[in-house]
Amino acid sequence: MCGIESITSVEKAGTIDLAVISVPTANVIPEMKKLAAMGTKHVIIITAGFKEEGADGRRLENELKKIASDNNMRIIGPNCFGIIDTHSGINTTFSSLLPPRGNAALCSQSGAVGATMFDWSRSSRVGVSKFVSLGNKMDVCEADMISYLSTDEDTEVIGIYSEGISDGRGFIRSVQGMEKKKPIIILKSGRTSAGSRAASSHTGALAGSDSIYNAVFRKLNILRAKDIDEMFDLISVFSLSRPMEKDGIAIITNAGGLGVMAADACSDDDWVTLAELSRRSMEKISEEVPSAASVHNPIDLRGDAKNDDVIKVIKIISADEAVGGVIVLASPLDMIDLNSIAESLYSVKNDIRIPIAVCFAGGSVAEEAAAILRSGGVPTFATPERAVRALSALREYGINKDFSGTPLVLPEVSGRPETLKVITNVKNDGRISLSEEEGKRILSSYGIPVPPEGTADSAHEAAELAEKIGFPVVMKILSPDIHHKTDIGGVIVGIKSHDEAMDAYETIMARTMVAMPDAKIDGVSIQKMVSGQEVILSLIRDEQFGPVISFGLGGIYVEILREISNAVVPMTSEELDRMITSTKAFRLLSGARGKPPADIASMKDIILRMIKIAEDNPELYELEINPIMVGKIRGGSWAVDALATLRFDDE
Amino acid sequence: MCGIESITSVEKAGTIDLAVISVPTANVIPEMKKLAAMGTKHVIIITAGFKEEGADGRRLENELKKIASDNNMRIIGPNCFGIIDTHSGINTTFSSLLPPRGNAALCSQSGAVGATMFDWSRSSRVGVSKFVSLGNKMDVCEADMISYLSTDEDTEVIGIYSEGISDGRGFIRSVQGMEKKKPIIILKSGRTSAGSRAASSHTGALAGSDSIYNAVFRKLNILRAKDIDEMFDLISVFSLSRPMEKDGIAIITNAGGLGVMAADACSDDDWVTLAELSRRSMEKISEEVPSAASVHNPIDLRGDAKNDDVIKVIKIISADEAVGGVIVLASPLDMIDLNSIAESLYSVKNDIRIPIAVCFAGGSVAEEAAAILRSGGVPTFATPERAVRALSALREYGINKDFSGTPLVLPEVSGRPETLKVITNVKNDGRISLSEEEGKRILSSYGIPVPPEGTADSAHEAAELAEKIGFPVVMKILSPDIHHKTDIGGVIVGIKSHDEAMDAYETIMARTMVAMPDAKIDGVSIQKMVSGQEVILSLIRDEQFGPVISFGLGGIYVEILREISNAVVPMTSEELDRMITSTKAFRLLSGARGKPPADIASMKDIILRMIKIAEDNPELYELEINPIMVGKIRGGSWAVDALATLRFDDE
Repeated sequence: MCGIESITSVEKAGTIDLAVISVPTANVIPEMKKLAAMGTKHVIIITAGFKEEGADGRRLENELKKIASDNNMRIIGPNCFGIIDTHSGINTTFSSLLPPRGNAALCSQSGAVGATMFDWSRSSRVGVSKFVSLGNKMDVCEADMISYLSTDEDTEVIGIYSEGISDGRGFIRSVQGMEKKKPIIILKSGRTSAGSRAASSHTGALAGSDSIYNAVFRKLNILRAKDIDEMFDLISVFSLSRPMEKDGIAIITNAGGLGVMAADACSDDDWVTLAELSRRSMEKISEEVPSAASVHNPIDLRGDAKNDDVIKVIKIISADEAVGGVIVLASPLDMIDLNSIAESLYSVKNDIRIPIAVCFAGGSVAEEAAAILRSGGVPTFATPERAVRALSALREYGINKDFSGTPLVLPEVSGRPETLKVITNVKNDGRISLSEEEGKRILSSYGIPVPPEGTADSAHEAAELAEKIGFPVVMKILSPDIHHKTDIGGVIVGIKSHDEAMDAYETIMARTMVAMPDAKIDGVSIQKMVSGQEVILSLIRDEQFGPVISFGLGGIYVEILREISNAVVPMTSEELDRMITSTKAFRLLSGARGKPPADIASMKDIILRMIKIAEDNPELYELEINPIMVGKIRGGSWAVDALATLRFDDE
Repeated sequence: MCGIESITSVEKAGTIDLAVISVPTANVIPEMKKLAAMGTKHVIIITAGFKEEGADGRRLENELKKIASDNNMRIIGPNCFGIIDTHSGINTTFSSLLPPRGNAALCSQSGAVGATMFDWSRSSRVGVSKFVSLGNKMDVCEADMISYLSTDEDTEVIGIYSEGISDGRGFIRSVQGMEKKKPIIILKSGRTSAGSRAASSHTGALAGSDSIYNAVFRKLNILRAKDIDEMFDLISVFSLSRPMEKDGIAIITNAGGLGVMAADACSDDDWVTLAELSRRSMEKISEEVPSAASVHNPIDLRGDAKNDDVIKVIKIISADEAVGGVIVLASPLDMIDLNSIAESLYSVKNDIRIPIAVCFAGGSVAEEAAAILRSGGVPTFATPERAVRALSALREYGINKDFSGTPLVLPEVSGRPETLKVITNVKNDGRISLSEEEGKRILSSYGIPVPPEGTADSAHEAAELAEKIGFPVVMKILSPDIHHKTDIGGVIVGIKSHDEAMDAYETIMARTMVAMPDAKIDGVSIQKMVSGQEVILSLIRDEQFGPVISFGLGGIYVEILREISNAVVPMTSEELDRMITSTKAFRLLSGARGKPPADIASMKDIILRMIKIAEDNPELYELEINPIMVGKIRGGSWAVDALATLRFDDE
């Protein structure tokens, strides 16, 4: 479209800082070779027809990649839309819709979504510093852009559209800490493909890659937008507003109904609440605006509110200690001139030390007034709920930014040698699944308590063993021929004494003789009976982000309630606590409805050891303990069942 | 504002069909009296200053109400914005922003939200048939409007903004059946005030009035919008689209990213799924549009899609059996002219027999093209997700419209006399709370199984009684002086035989003698031990909507998981089934993770009897069974605990 047929025509013009390739696919490799020979280090490849086209394209792209890495070249694309720097004036895109200059850096995997961003930017008056279309991300990816943009002086907020992070571990490494400098908003689509990963554990399916993305974004204080509208709303508010230093939303409206909607949204929100105005503020409002229908928050100035009233009230409440942000809501009633309200808000906004979000609800009349506000750098939102979410995002980012990261101290336990023995043995057998017993050996080697057990061949031996293990115990017939032990009465639970153990052994044997006289009997197994609240804990190695720990309610509830929280390894002490406390399982363990609190400390110790296992043993693909029985306080926790599979790098 | 000073000036002009009162508050009553004397039957009172202003205003409003009912007058307002009928040309509002003529009836409790609706209607080009501002709803309320509008020939869809239904039972009575005629969209705000009702039961708080509103709206097939945007989206789609007769969403886009977002939204949606195109359709697409990057749904025509391509593909897929609705998504890329796509879509829309929803994602360029579409009566949406939700709402309404209502057959059981005895006794005691025993007497009188129990004074008697009740049993010390029976060893569970019962009696007595030698002993209670899955079932009498039945997971999970489903009494057989099957409790009972299925039939029988209790006994304010133990299949279900409170009409 634009572009020249071959780079040779400029060959003698000196060194090329940045080349843009936009030639037919077949010509890209030859041009790249010429650029390499000329010493050009930075190339943007607009041309499509690579990885996205299947096997042939993938081969071509690999060839490109080799040329680039052999010659230390950095590539944006291929299959991209180019870049724009509004401050220096560079524009390599083929778009006629250029965004205005500003402080928001936009980054889009998709060129078309990039075009949507430009169009939005022009209408919303949120100016752009840099725009980058990443395309196939053969080299430069989201992580590179975040690293770069977080030190870019022209950029205050980074907005990203992505369909998937290709190098998850690299992404975490690059971004960690960067998000403290600048807010990052991401719209990540492609939730549907989450279920594609094969997983044999229960949490494997639950910890689908999309919920792992959520865990990663939370870890990095990246705000994930739920749709395009929210992405644009959040970019607007971070681009235009000051930070929201404290909680407390005050609402001013000429329409009681809109105030109720915003109050509802505050009560549903995780990060902000409705401010309780001081008596002094309310008195001042009644004095200055006698017509106000409600001086309580939400402040309802009624349909006949005057322009001045809104400004008076903003000044009063922005001085109130309980108020951290203001939302102004208005309906286009005839008695009020939204345009002049917009102009007044525009003029006072610098005098107000807290963020202001505005929603004029309606159609073109409301929109005209909103446009005036935006031209003055005041963010506007289509609905009361979206205005609340925008301020809530300011707060969310601010709170998490100050969230300190204490390194997690893992128990000093060297289970690796024993675990490696188990793994080697399984591998030598040609298996990838571990038996329960093998799984438990790994857990034990890391000091995770498993209920003691043993085998007995006589009533006497059974009773002795039970005594050694400690009552109560469970006794089960051991036989390769008997698959449904319970059906033939081959399991007795709750054995509480030496005598009961003697009796139980005889009873089991007698029942077995009657039911299956020909079965080969290996004795009985005796296991300590443990009780407590069932939770599930698992490790799964995500293809993008590496080891992920999942935690939640266990037993039969895990699949039905799908109440699982994830965190990526390694994690800080605060992340671990957040993973645990954000679950309903934690509420149960803390002593819900008069239940005594459970032994959370011993359960947390098991999680720490699980993290150590994850760090030590790259061959373990999945390891799930379902359930852990968390006993009463100081009663300990036990890993009752273990499920594990391996994956080797050479596969 | 407008209005005349007194109605006497037109006194001689003949009968007045409709009077609009818009005079100072103090003059409203005198004018009403004059109108009454003149025989005017229909009055709109714009004037405010009534119920909404506190006690004095409430008194004034009661006076108004009396004049109206004494003279058979129907009143809209007071404190309202008036009405508009675009077809006859009546307009009693004081708005200069008038909506265009069309088929959507709008109804708003708040005048200001009404102004927002007008402004939206003008921009969105969704025309209005009637507009009514209801204000204080002294007489005419939402139910009246729905009754009227459902037979109004100019109206095809009804959109309502409400802050609360005042006569809930009347609302259900009026609306039932009407929603089959026309779709009703409601935006109901005021969720926050839900917690205001005093309730001593667990579900009392959970079944907050907002979740009861949800149950009522579901019952009546009223679509509840989550915010203003969704209300407008749904009104648009019902106003402009044909019904969506079958599932299957096909997506056509020039931007892969937008297609992914829409596909994600389909996979999250309860009512629609992504269509699987036939091989024939895909072949045709490849033939006709060779550049298409993906002929699988979502169909990606790439950034350089031509205007014609979109139309060709729409024609192909709208003939595909698997497709029930089409979504067209586009980004404003330079290579595509959105305006001409809009014009083509506009021109083909009548040839296509399935609904089309369009999202042009961006800012003013996208908006300009969207405006062309809207002027041609094609609904447009701001995001891919909102386009999906719009079609999903068409489908939701259509499916529920065909949902037949089989009357529920309740067991013929006359527990009322016995229940009334209990109630009278409690009332005579000056109590409102029933003891567990009194609650269980009510349950038993309606044939709800409670575990048999009795009291024994000797080991022998205890053993006899236990045998009669049936093992296993639980034995507990009975003493008004001992509050923590478990702490002194006064409870023994799992007693399985005559001998164990003898022993248990002696043990309990001996322990009590040691721990509390001076306690007054009334013997021991013996109760059948029942086991199974714990569920909760409750009846609460909602102030607006009358008796509501709630059902969900029981025991310690009820408060933590808050997993409760509600239905309003009376209900159809289908509503009862939906209430039961929509819960996670039902999934557990159906045999999750290899557990055997539970005795759902016996549990359902208990629910039927609970509904009978609700219908028979208006004095019962709350009755909660927590838990019901649902046994294994054919094992029966048992009401283990009962909590009940009364409320009398004269309070």
